[in-house]
Amino acid sequence: MLKENERLDDLGLGGYGVIQDTSGFCFGSDAVLLAAFAGAQKGRVLDLCAGSGVVAVLLWILGPPKSVDALELVPEVADMAARTMSLNGLSEKIRVTEGDALRAPEIYGKRVFDAVVCNPPYMNKGGGLVNPDAKKAAARHEIYCGIRDIARVCSQVLCPRGKLFLVHRADRLCDVLCALREFSLEPKRMSLVHSRKGDAASLVLIEALLGGRPQIKVTPPVFLYGEDGKYIAPLGGIAR
Amino acid sequence: MLKENERLDDLGLGGYGVIQDTSGFCFGSDAVLLAAFAGAQKGRVLDLCAGSGVVAVLLWILGPPKSVDALELVPEVADMAARTMSLNGLSEKIRVTEGDALRAPEIYGKRVFDAVVCNPPYMNKGGGLVNPDAKKAAARHEIYCGIRDIARVCSQVLCPRGKLFLVHRADRLCDVLCALREFSLEPKRMSLVHSRKGDAASLVLIEALLGGRPQIKVTPPVFLYGEDGKYIAPLGGIAR
Repeated sequence: MLKENERLDDLGLGGYGVIQDTSGFCFGSDAVLLAAFAGAQKGRVLDLCAGSGVVAVLLWILGPPKSVDALELVPEVADMAARTMSLNGLSEKIRVTEGDALRAPEIYGKRVFDAVVCNPPYMNKGGGLVNPDAKKAAARHEIYCGIRDIARVCSQVLCPRGKLFLVHRADRLCDVLCALREFSLEPKRMSLVHSRKGDAASLVLIEALLGGRPQIKVTPPVFLYGEDGKYIAPLGGIAR
Repeated sequence: MLKENERLDDLGLGGYGVIQDTSGFCFGSDAVLLAAFAGAQKGRVLDLCAGSGVVAVLLWILGPPKSVDALELVPEVADMAARTMSLNGLSEKIRVTEGDALRAPEIYGKRVFDAVVCNPPYMNKGGGLVNPDAKKAAARHEIYCGIRDIARVCSQVLCPRGKLFLVHRADRLCDVLCALREFSLEPKRMSLVHSRKGDAASLVLIEALLGGRPQIKVTPPVFLYGEDGKYIAPLGGIAR
């Protein structure tokens, strides 16, 4: 099942594992936070910019949803995610598709999902050093799609009153909120993630409602490390 | 100095006091948080929607700025703020003007302030019960000016690279950020205020830079009450 440079990471939950390319982009706490923030989804779910497929697997464990589709641009990464689903016996439940996030409405149709989860590339085009490894660059930089593209696509594939769950860098908060609102995805719930008490926020988690009315709830902050320095597993749940 | 229904509140700082109308809108922790968030200002400052003038007095204590102008719509409240300045011997330093915030560019001219502080009405027009007392209603509801009006006016009276410091209800975060960006006031620093650990945010403090580039820093959260239940005086400073 494993190719060169790949390793199998145990999620520590019901025996599920995720294949990762150690020479490529590996998932981190942001993927786990995103799944914990979305919580138990019961409808039809799309994981956009799915990467290794870890969010899709976690949503399966937390839900399970009626169905999960996972869309990933980079062929080798999509292949790896598909093998992860086989390995977990989830190939029938979580369908991995190789393709461009921007083509999601063509691939799946419009108004078909109850929820979309997305851990998109974080860096602005032109912001930061672009990794010479094309796979890593695609995962980190808005080369193939920016936050406005993501918002537009999500507004098309979601059913009316469908929800988008998104993780992004905290310093891009305004870009994210303004893009969502532009495409009628009204931000309704937001959690800021800080490594430790006293640290600025590093990540932001946002739940947006297609066609929702303006009014957002900012939850208690999420800290990744307790005052004792211990890592707090975010799957324990995020306060609403 | 005091009229009927008025009382003098000691700020507990260098002997300064503020007159308040006990039958009207009284300042709360939001005003103190706003001043603490703005910190030591040294240039020409405008306090828009000044109310009792408490933010202007606090900025004087924290700075002092080169000059402070305080603009207040409601005649009785502006008169009360002017008497507060007399009482503190600050009439020469803090000029109180009665007038509509929307007329600030006519009153003071364009591109004249290095910083604006604003504790505007929080409630959307049509949102919540409007207080039958006209003075309280003007302070709480966007009857005379909304957040887009505030953003537009601030973008006019601020010098290039001037800063706006704003406090608002946390649940209106998207309205605030989108309005600021619309008028080239780029949000650069934000603090969320929670009553207690485990509570959703009630207030948001935002620093915006006229002509700034997109990128916001979300500071560590501010808690008003410690785990021992004691009130934490925000003038102790807000982490940047």
